[in-house]
Amino acid sequence: MEPRVSLITLGVADVTRSREFYERLGWVGQEVQETVFVQAGALALVLWSREKLAADVGIADDGADGFGGIALAHNVRSNEEVDEIVAAAHAAGAIVTKPPDVTFYGGYSGYFTDPDGHAWEIGHNPGFSLAPDGSITIPDFGSS
Amino acid sequence: MEPRVSLITLGVADVTRSREFYERLGWVGQEVQETVFVQAGALALVLWSREKLAADVGIADDGADGFGGIALAHNVRSNEEVDEIVAAAHAAGAIVTKPPDVTFYGGYSGYFTDPDGHAWEIGHNPGFSLAPDGSITIPDFGSS
Repeated sequence: MEPRVSLITLGVADVTRSREFYERLGWVGQEVQETVFVQAGALALVLWSREKLAADVGIADDGADGFGGIALAHNVRSNEEVDEIVAAAHAAGAIVTKPPDVTFYGGYSGYFTDPDGHAWEIGHNPGFSLAPDGSITIPDFGSS
Repeated sequence: MEPRVSLITLGVADVTRSREFYERLGWVGQEVQETVFVQAGALALVLWSREKLAADVGIADDGADGFGGIALAHNVRSNEEVDEIVAAAHAAGAIVTKPPDVTFYGGYSGYFTDPDGHAWEIGHNPGFSLAPDGSITIPDFGSS
């Protein structure tokens, strides 16, 4: 698993309220399916419903497991890499909260939590290009 | 505030346990003052005591405010920029949990939380070089 982060997803109560807050700071994003993507250098900040994020991670978000309403994503270039890294994380002691599977957006991803409950998604999203150095570029969705 | 993230700090119960977990995944870092820094592309992943992180953010970490045991840092090039961005965040509706002040490592930083309690540090750390594109490089601390 290369040391790099592709996405930081902040789980929020109200995507519009959160988006407006970040826009006031100059962080302008694109909204797609009630999800806001803000290109931030080599990665992207994502604003998404905390409830949906917890369901995606595969946990209850009841405060018992350390989930902090944030997920970090590490994007890779193939479904096979997703499988390999999730298996390696499991072997390293991670809890696999969602085994790799196809996603609603046509990608493939799995989630694990680290020893403190921090959530990581390992994903292959053909729509998000990864440069040779691992930096990710959010495409122009044609939305605002 | 430029859209970029300099550090992702994960609050952990046991820095050694966490460090060993990430090392098993190939994320090798340097430990300085019970804090582990792992260069991860254009940013750094930091492993630090969750208790110390909460104190640094300036919150109680009692579950009431949305703090998830993670802080994002946005590093800038001067103390004045720290003041300006924290003031702008306050004007944008953030709660300033720690007004900008000098830090124990010789830098200058302040913290705010977004509408969902996610914590941001705005910091000037002369020891961490910032490239023109905003990517940060962790120096060689001469530690392991």
